[in-house]
Amino acid sequence: MPINRNFQQLSENYFFSAINRRASQFAEAHPDQRLIRLSIGDVTQPLCPCVVAALEKAAQEMGKVDTFRGYGPEQGYPFLREAIAGYYKKWNISLETEEIFISDGAKSDLGNILDLFSEGTSVLIPDPVYPVYVDASIMGGKKILFLDASEENSFLPLPPAFHADVIFLCSPNNPTGAVYSKDGLQAWVDYALAEKAVLLFDGAYEAFITDPSLPHSIFEVDGAKKCAIEFCSFSKKAGFTGTRCGYTVIPKELEIDGLSLNHLWLRRQTTKFNGVPYIVQRGAEAVFTPQGEQETTKAIAYYQENARIIRQGLDQLSISYTGGENAPYIWMRCPGRMDSEQYFKFLLEHCTVVGSPGIGFGKNGKYFFRLTAFGDREDVKEAIKRIINCMSL
Amino acid sequence: MPINRNFQQLSENYFFSAINRRASQFAEAHPDQRLIRLSIGDVTQPLCPCVVAALEKAAQEMGKVDTFRGYGPEQGYPFLREAIAGYYKKWNISLETEEIFISDGAKSDLGNILDLFSEGTSVLIPDPVYPVYVDASIMGGKKILFLDASEENSFLPLPPAFHADVIFLCSPNNPTGAVYSKDGLQAWVDYALAEKAVLLFDGAYEAFITDPSLPHSIFEVDGAKKCAIEFCSFSKKAGFTGTRCGYTVIPKELEIDGLSLNHLWLRRQTTKFNGVPYIVQRGAEAVFTPQGEQETTKAIAYYQENARIIRQGLDQLSISYTGGENAPYIWMRCPGRMDSEQYFKFLLEHCTVVGSPGIGFGKNGKYFFRLTAFGDREDVKEAIKRIINCMSL
Repeated sequence: MPINRNFQQLSENYFFSAINRRASQFAEAHPDQRLIRLSIGDVTQPLCPCVVAALEKAAQEMGKVDTFRGYGPEQGYPFLREAIAGYYKKWNISLETEEIFISDGAKSDLGNILDLFSEGTSVLIPDPVYPVYVDASIMGGKKILFLDASEENSFLPLPPAFHADVIFLCSPNNPTGAVYSKDGLQAWVDYALAEKAVLLFDGAYEAFITDPSLPHSIFEVDGAKKCAIEFCSFSKKAGFTGTRCGYTVIPKELEIDGLSLNHLWLRRQTTKFNGVPYIVQRGAEAVFTPQGEQETTKAIAYYQENARIIRQGLDQLSISYTGGENAPYIWMRCPGRMDSEQYFKFLLEHCTVVGSPGIGFGKNGKYFFRLTAFGDREDVKEAIKRIINCMSL
Repeated sequence: MPINRNFQQLSENYFFSAINRRASQFAEAHPDQRLIRLSIGDVTQPLCPCVVAALEKAAQEMGKVDTFRGYGPEQGYPFLREAIAGYYKKWNISLETEEIFISDGAKSDLGNILDLFSEGTSVLIPDPVYPVYVDASIMGGKKILFLDASEENSFLPLPPAFHADVIFLCSPNNPTGAVYSKDGLQAWVDYALAEKAVLLFDGAYEAFITDPSLPHSIFEVDGAKKCAIEFCSFSKKAGFTGTRCGYTVIPKELEIDGLSLNHLWLRRQTTKFNGVPYIVQRGAEAVFTPQGEQETTKAIAYYQENARIIRQGLDQLSISYTGGENAPYIWMRCPGRMDSEQYFKFLLEHCTVVGSPGIGFGKNGKYFFRLTAFGDREDVKEAIKRIINCMSL
């Protein structure tokens, strides 16, 4: 039986699941200690009121024969695709609704997009990296090429001298919190055009950008529509981690060997996907109303203040880091020459705080550690207090 | 650039999308005529009251910090997996919650499950068939072997004399409405065990079975836990076509070459999927409450009565068919020696009724036509009246 043997090249478990299990085991063994998780990038603030109202209204519609909705378009309802096209106008990007595909989250599409490429396709992935790019590439039998992201290049590597077919880029970056400038992204677009490569641009954290000089979308860069696909999500923008909605933009201009990737993806999605719940799409639509923008901006400001508190604590300890500005992640160097696994254990056992060891994101993460700003305010304050106390002993 | 060339072996469009477009074009050209669609298998009855109440309650929970839910388990919340395990007890099937994976619908999982098998894996598919099995197999570079389903074998083919690695079976069948007996399924399980093959059993329509002698689940058959995966859906059972929820059962006993498919699928889902919306899972949970069972049974009875009306009309015209009992589909022989495309055109132009030409489901569908019982009662009555009038001229 030809089982897909590529799976055997994967590590036993998905990284975040394994981290979560180790933390839970500690918590069970120490029921008296309150664990604070600054590890998995999950939001803690509730859905904003206008989204909840939209969800409730849509649920009611589904209960009446006149307003009930069955199968929707696999690529999403026009009302939501139009709202997203409107959002892009903020950055002077003009999209057709047919270029926007509603998804159940960026994670699904970032993995499934590899269906469009043959086994053996070379995939360039910065290290450290969101593990999904690596694991999905392994499952699909792709040839992975790593590119070092390090303190030397401010964790924003520029294109290499060798060829790659497909490139994963994430900005604002998970895990490092580093954000590409427009010039940096232009270098990548130029590389992709020269190499006839496809840029897979993960913009899941764009809503955290406050610096007006930084690009929110790859399509702010000249030529990107001919070489890039962008993956976005309501997860971090509007607290949809448990509500599940995202979108993927594939410009019609993007052709490889005369084949339209927009068309191939449409064919993939109409065959292997049945769209996002109507109710959820109505909730997502509300995010783009004036009230929705106001409410989600407020929730993001809450997390940005958390990031500021974490940065302030690290500054006090003279620990170097990137991120935490224009990004919800803080990527810190492990103190005291500890490697990231040692520091994970140290923080868990001495501070009862859970973070993500950098090694889980790649070899260049060996001496780094990721903290997230998605926690509850009091938890973040308490965690930083504990870390400062521990380190000051 | 190594684009997945398998996509080029696909027909230009997903079959149902193409049918829908042809019907819409006719409707636009004839705004005075009211089109009745008995084609795509989409439900028309609203979600039942207890499901709507559960959706609303869950939406409210998501709006409060104390009850908000972020990322859930990729494989689904225990509350829903336990409710499903409870449902299987009806047929004396005992499942562990870890054997149940909540999905966003059977279509996604039926396609994505092929990720677990290498390119070149032989996939046995009855003809006629739900096009997703074929298209997903082509995309994944599988080797397709067809098995004839015809009037001769009552559209319930038994295992062939040759080997296959993977077999797609659907009972109650889409498109033919034929339902395997326990003996029929036992023959397939015996074949799969002998060939060390994997049965992919699509049970999306099990809720339409009324004959107590017919199996609802492949796991009612001895040995199935060692060779079968079952795909189910709330789409037809509870009107979730626009709400999106299903489940896939992979027994822990199912091992191929010493590899647990349950484990491989968990690895696939944790990497390339982020679970079903919490709200939707609460809605699905309500289906299994006593009130939910009562309300969904009532909705199914409505469609069953539609099926009876369609059968009665065909009987009156002495047209032969299968299905419509224990199944929402009626698979009729095209009258007057027309082939299915001619009959599609005939029905559309003379009766303004849309059905699905059998050829879209495979070569053995060339002289057959699928009608569905999912319409509105008055529409079904009107459609049958029009068909009888047309045919009686």
